[in-house]
Amino acid sequence: MKWCRFQSAQKVAYGIIDGDTVTEVTGSPFESHTKTSTTVPLSRVTLLVPVIPPTFYAAGVNYREHVTEMAHRRGATPEFPPHADVGYRANNALCAHEEKIVIPKDATELVQYEGELVAVIGKKVKRISEAEALDCVFGYTIGNDVSERTWQRGDRTFWRGKNTDTFKPMGPWIATGLDPDTLTVMIRLNGKEMYTYAVKDALFGLRTFISRMSQYLTLYPGDVLWLGTDGPTENMKDGDVVEVEIPGIGVLRNPVVRET
Amino acid sequence: MKWCRFQSAQKVAYGIIDGDTVTEVTGSPFESHTKTSTTVPLSRVTLLVPVIPPTFYAAGVNYREHVTEMAHRRGATPEFPPHADVGYRANNALCAHEEKIVIPKDATELVQYEGELVAVIGKKVKRISEAEALDCVFGYTIGNDVSERTWQRGDRTFWRGKNTDTFKPMGPWIATGLDPDTLTVMIRLNGKEMYTYAVKDALFGLRTFISRMSQYLTLYPGDVLWLGTDGPTENMKDGDVVEVEIPGIGVLRNPVVRET
Repeated sequence: MKWCRFQSAQKVAYGIIDGDTVTEVTGSPFESHTKTSTTVPLSRVTLLVPVIPPTFYAAGVNYREHVTEMAHRRGATPEFPPHADVGYRANNALCAHEEKIVIPKDATELVQYEGELVAVIGKKVKRISEAEALDCVFGYTIGNDVSERTWQRGDRTFWRGKNTDTFKPMGPWIATGLDPDTLTVMIRLNGKEMYTYAVKDALFGLRTFISRMSQYLTLYPGDVLWLGTDGPTENMKDGDVVEVEIPGIGVLRNPVVRET
Repeated sequence: MKWCRFQSAQKVAYGIIDGDTVTEVTGSPFESHTKTSTTVPLSRVTLLVPVIPPTFYAAGVNYREHVTEMAHRRGATPEFPPHADVGYRANNALCAHEEKIVIPKDATELVQYEGELVAVIGKKVKRISEAEALDCVFGYTIGNDVSERTWQRGDRTFWRGKNTDTFKPMGPWIATGLDPDTLTVMIRLNGKEMYTYAVKDALFGLRTFISRMSQYLTLYPGDVLWLGTDGPTENMKDGDVVEVEIPGIGVLRNPVVRET
């Protein structure tokens, strides 16, 4: 099943997508909800970020090729994280499918995509085992962890390097009933395939992250966990279009503009 | 004026505190709201965290004595941050006034308080000057940035060192109409005064943080910015009571328990 959040006329609602049609739902996918009799063609709605998370978790560096390539470019030795220590991103930076990624005037050329799987939590849980960890996942969506590399390296935190407004595209919707171990992530820039990787090649998988996090942190419905990206990443410039595709979920597409 | 969020019977609402009485308000302090005719004695309500922030910002290291003392204890040279690079904390860790701070079984003895001022944003703003920065602040509350120092130093991020459930006491309410430059922060452990400092001695003040952040990030109503703590910080153990007082706002008090 595919769940979206959408705007149609002045109304914002959750909806269930069936083929080319969105059926409006009252309530939220994480609580009690009811299908209404209102349907709208998918092509006529504006898709919004599918969930505004109470807490926005991100695995950060979590794939071997990405760590190796990024270290190589800096002339450094790759350092692999010893544990699944989760990080954070910020809601101000969220950006919907088809919405513009806006590069600030004073950013360098090194503004890069990072296409990745996003797990959306559906249940309040604490201290779950790795074996049970996926039971708390409601579904999956797609994220693009856009990063300005000079700020990412130079600032004390990731505040503007990762969390400048529009730097966190997420969407287009949440797909349920998937096995994350079978998923692949494809990144395209202006239609050209840049990199494809298997979700299961993560240094630490979703089960490991969720179980470890939940030993200390309560996870809540709507929380999201971005799993990290693999491979080298390239610069995006004004006029580019970046797409992240995960077959079984869909395509997250965003045009890129630079402020003048 | 003092705004609280409270639970009375099964109901959660915002309220305005006048002396010993809470007047229930419909809506939120950040949007349209109306005073109702319902009043409850302050002593009869359970105070909740006064706001659940869309984004939870924290200045981190932002006072000279604190940086110096913490470096000294590690046998390191103090390093002062060159810029106001804001960091993040997480909503799962929020803990109300009088609620227990729960130290996990496997934490070391180095679980410490950090009493600090919290600015609550009241308006959606982007790119405001330092001169205008305080115009977007709705009011002020108190935070205790509880930290497990071995996790803080050993883990790749602050996920459990700073964001273990209950590690972010915030409250007891939001006070409006204050000049942050005149405020002092007092920290007491079991009634003993541990440290007192002036908010204005920050390495980077609120105006600097807010203006700099807003060059890249849209700030939203309800966002909070914790300004950092000063001075040495000491361990808290099972049975302790920690209080952070900011005259003009109030006292944030939390008992401490260790899981067995």
